[in-house]
Amino acid sequence: MPYICREFFFQNKSNYYTRMAKELPSRSEDYSQWYNELVKKADLAEHSDVRGCMVIKPYGFSIWEKMQAALDKMFKDTGHVNAYFPLFVPKSYLAREAEHVEGFAKECAVVTHYRLKNAEDGSGVIVDPDAKLEEELIVRPTSETVIWNTYKKWIQSYRDLPILVNQWANVVRWEMRTRLFLRTAEFLWQEGHTAHATAEEAVKETLQMLDVYETFAQEYMAMPVYKGKKSEGEKFPGAVDTYCIEAMMQDGRALQAGTSHFLGQNFAKAFDVQFSGKDGKLEYVWGTSWGVSTRLIGALILAHSDDDGLILPPKLAPIHVVAVPIFRNEEELSAISARIEPVLADLRRLGLTVKFDDRDTHKPGFKFAEHELKGIPVRIAIGPRDLENGTLEVARRDTREKQVVKLDAAATTIPALLEDIQKTIYKRALDFRNQKTTRVETYKEMIEVLDQKGGFVSAHWDGTMETEALIKEETKATIRCIPLDAQEEEGKCVYSGKPSKRRVLFARAY
Amino acid sequence: MPYICREFFFQNKSNYYTRMAKELPSRSEDYSQWYNELVKKADLAEHSDVRGCMVIKPYGFSIWEKMQAALDKMFKDTGHVNAYFPLFVPKSYLAREAEHVEGFAKECAVVTHYRLKNAEDGSGVIVDPDAKLEEELIVRPTSETVIWNTYKKWIQSYRDLPILVNQWANVVRWEMRTRLFLRTAEFLWQEGHTAHATAEEAVKETLQMLDVYETFAQEYMAMPVYKGKKSEGEKFPGAVDTYCIEAMMQDGRALQAGTSHFLGQNFAKAFDVQFSGKDGKLEYVWGTSWGVSTRLIGALILAHSDDDGLILPPKLAPIHVVAVPIFRNEEELSAISARIEPVLADLRRLGLTVKFDDRDTHKPGFKFAEHELKGIPVRIAIGPRDLENGTLEVARRDTREKQVVKLDAAATTIPALLEDIQKTIYKRALDFRNQKTTRVETYKEMIEVLDQKGGFVSAHWDGTMETEALIKEETKATIRCIPLDAQEEEGKCVYSGKPSKRRVLFARAY
Repeated sequence: MPYICREFFFQNKSNYYTRMAKELPSRSEDYSQWYNELVKKADLAEHSDVRGCMVIKPYGFSIWEKMQAALDKMFKDTGHVNAYFPLFVPKSYLAREAEHVEGFAKECAVVTHYRLKNAEDGSGVIVDPDAKLEEELIVRPTSETVIWNTYKKWIQSYRDLPILVNQWANVVRWEMRTRLFLRTAEFLWQEGHTAHATAEEAVKETLQMLDVYETFAQEYMAMPVYKGKKSEGEKFPGAVDTYCIEAMMQDGRALQAGTSHFLGQNFAKAFDVQFSGKDGKLEYVWGTSWGVSTRLIGALILAHSDDDGLILPPKLAPIHVVAVPIFRNEEELSAISARIEPVLADLRRLGLTVKFDDRDTHKPGFKFAEHELKGIPVRIAIGPRDLENGTLEVARRDTREKQVVKLDAAATTIPALLEDIQKTIYKRALDFRNQKTTRVETYKEMIEVLDQKGGFVSAHWDGTMETEALIKEETKATIRCIPLDAQEEEGKCVYSGKPSKRRVLFARAY
Repeated sequence: MPYICREFFFQNKSNYYTRMAKELPSRSEDYSQWYNELVKKADLAEHSDVRGCMVIKPYGFSIWEKMQAALDKMFKDTGHVNAYFPLFVPKSYLAREAEHVEGFAKECAVVTHYRLKNAEDGSGVIVDPDAKLEEELIVRPTSETVIWNTYKKWIQSYRDLPILVNQWANVVRWEMRTRLFLRTAEFLWQEGHTAHATAEEAVKETLQMLDVYETFAQEYMAMPVYKGKKSEGEKFPGAVDTYCIEAMMQDGRALQAGTSHFLGQNFAKAFDVQFSGKDGKLEYVWGTSWGVSTRLIGALILAHSDDDGLILPPKLAPIHVVAVPIFRNEEELSAISARIEPVLADLRRLGLTVKFDDRDTHKPGFKFAEHELKGIPVRIAIGPRDLENGTLEVARRDTREKQVVKLDAAATTIPALLEDIQKTIYKRALDFRNQKTTRVETYKEMIEVLDQKGGFVSAHWDGTMETEALIKEETKATIRCIPLDAQEEEGKCVYSGKPSKRRVLFARAY
């Protein structure tokens, strides 16, 4: 290996991290600014010159790679395969499904020409007016239309079903107000698109993928979620039902972390996709689609991190363990290296990513701050006195607790510690989420909770889009979901007083 | 697992494969048509409705996933990290590097508007003339400009170097004549972009990545390549030097399988990227870029496959082994299943992907044809008589040889056989490539070889772009590369008779 990439980590810019860490605002001071600065200072992402488009930097992208790997395996374990469909959607496709075009055709990137040419006045390159497309192409905001147009060719008989396909891709939605990861014009995502012979099977698939997302959020992201159904007003344009997972951020605002749609026969009808059943009768195909995006990186940060930087769950951390030698001279460093490197090698053999930060250009305190900013779950420190005692110091990022560990116990202690960190982060987020979920009986109470405590408000609602819209207008809170485990109970809508059969979750949201 | 995806493999369409396989033209009949049909019939890819854009179907995409995994590991093992940069390039960026704009700005997808609206006459959605972009955006044909514009922010000091970044992405070049995988308007690729403090280091990186591509082509694709440098006329627009790997297809035409560019300081100057050295002096940064694309899937097919379908090297085959039970009734099938499944489980434990094709809707002969079309390297057949003997029949796709193997030897025989298949395919391609490489001394001889035998022609050339252009015009052969291992020898240009110091490789190419 002739090179070691220093962009990914351990950037040597003088005093970069000390200076930067100091400039990180606290969450209580300005949560929004804390997030923006943390994303930049932890080298996760930055704005590009193209409005609304971000550059995902190597450290941020490595978190996405971890997410992709875990999700991809879960998709494959449930029988799905990956494929790739075109970036461009002919304008007329979007118009085929009435609600879909209303939802997606409005703010989008439109390709109208296919050639540039040199300006005659020598001023540079200009769009060649002779190279105008007959039909404009839209950069995909989502791929239902392109995919169902393809499925028409793939499906004739019930024997061709189900089709269980996923795509990892970039999509573009021309957002006016953007924030790194949370809302960007271009983002990366996966979109599953499945086709089925029966409504029952499609609904089962929709809910299965919602479960996959829930498992991923809880077990990998250490982020508890409520699973539920969207109201009519919040569902995906073109879907019959939209299901979602909703998470709680540290500022008391909710974040939609994944959606799974039962499309009914809507896209099959729009693209005339029929199959002949066992009885030979033609019927429209039933569909689902489901997706999560790079927005999850934003959720991960907002859910767990603190005023000193990122807190990453070990299952998604690009680096699990960093070791910092405490030394005054070359001799001490080489004595420390000789003892620590076999320990690090043992940890690597267990599948952990381990860095030995032996830079002599920075003091340990500087390195510690840097590793905290980057959210490395476990830090080892080892100095000459440790060598004498045959020990090392192990610090965990989440609780900042330190313990002294025997060198020969490190290979068992540290993996166990990482497991404990994963659980502790989840538990902390769960307690917070539960504490931030409040049952209210009146509209006044609801407003008080939203204004003072924040979080989810569990309240009765009369089921009308009218009431939903009025509450949103007055409180800025939206119905996040109708929880799947909501119990039947007689109640009255907090707003209209009309009868209600179950509580729904309201919140102000990202 | 509630579902088994049948799209990926084992499509149940009645007589689909028998009918299809019969329609596959032979290579000698029509090589070009054979390729086109094979890509479609083996379920690798198909044309979409958007001109020049393809749908990569699950089976084709799974080959790409295998390629990605192997390459990504090689990139990371050489110190690179992944990142993601925006899809859109502002028009003015392309114009910053003079040669680059000539090469890429011409045929491209141009985004001019960011909104659609409902037509006032109710005829559908139209482009909103009020939503015209101030500066047009180009869908990236390659990302040098966007990335160097970003590197300007990342690089101040020699301590920030090197930067070793790779991106997996889609790109768009508005090709007029397209062919699945080989030349499409949108394709998938990886593009490495590195920044260095010295020219020496950048050249070393350029050549290192060329070696990575060579290793990948030879060890994974089983495809021998010549490594060399492009002539001035064939190099990447904006590069100082372009290096490439060139492979030979079965019809005697060459295919460029990967390129690695030494960019000198061209993009650093275009985007004003300077760094302060150890001596405090400002200097422009040195760059490289390198890429391979989904075109490699086309190369893989053209290099190895035969008139009955795909021949895939085991290291890139989505399925390594398929087992076909030969049975007349349920009882026989269950007896066979009971014996074969532990064997298949053993193979899976070794990391192989194994399918048991126990469909009762198709005859073994049909299945065999289907597995051959799909290029599954090893096929197991097992019937009642095998059970009596404790054996199974193992057939290899590459040579079609069959052998009878004891059931308890399968878990050792089959992995060894897969290794042998990988080697045999490579050896066959190497012998073919060598046989198709001809040294010529005269232009007449060169034309004869090109017309009658095809392949690479090793000939002296005077080094001028003029001669290169004339030869191309007259013979349709281009200089594929100046081989890195070309020996210094005194010679005369086959065309002009002027002195030449070394031979170069000419060929008609994809």
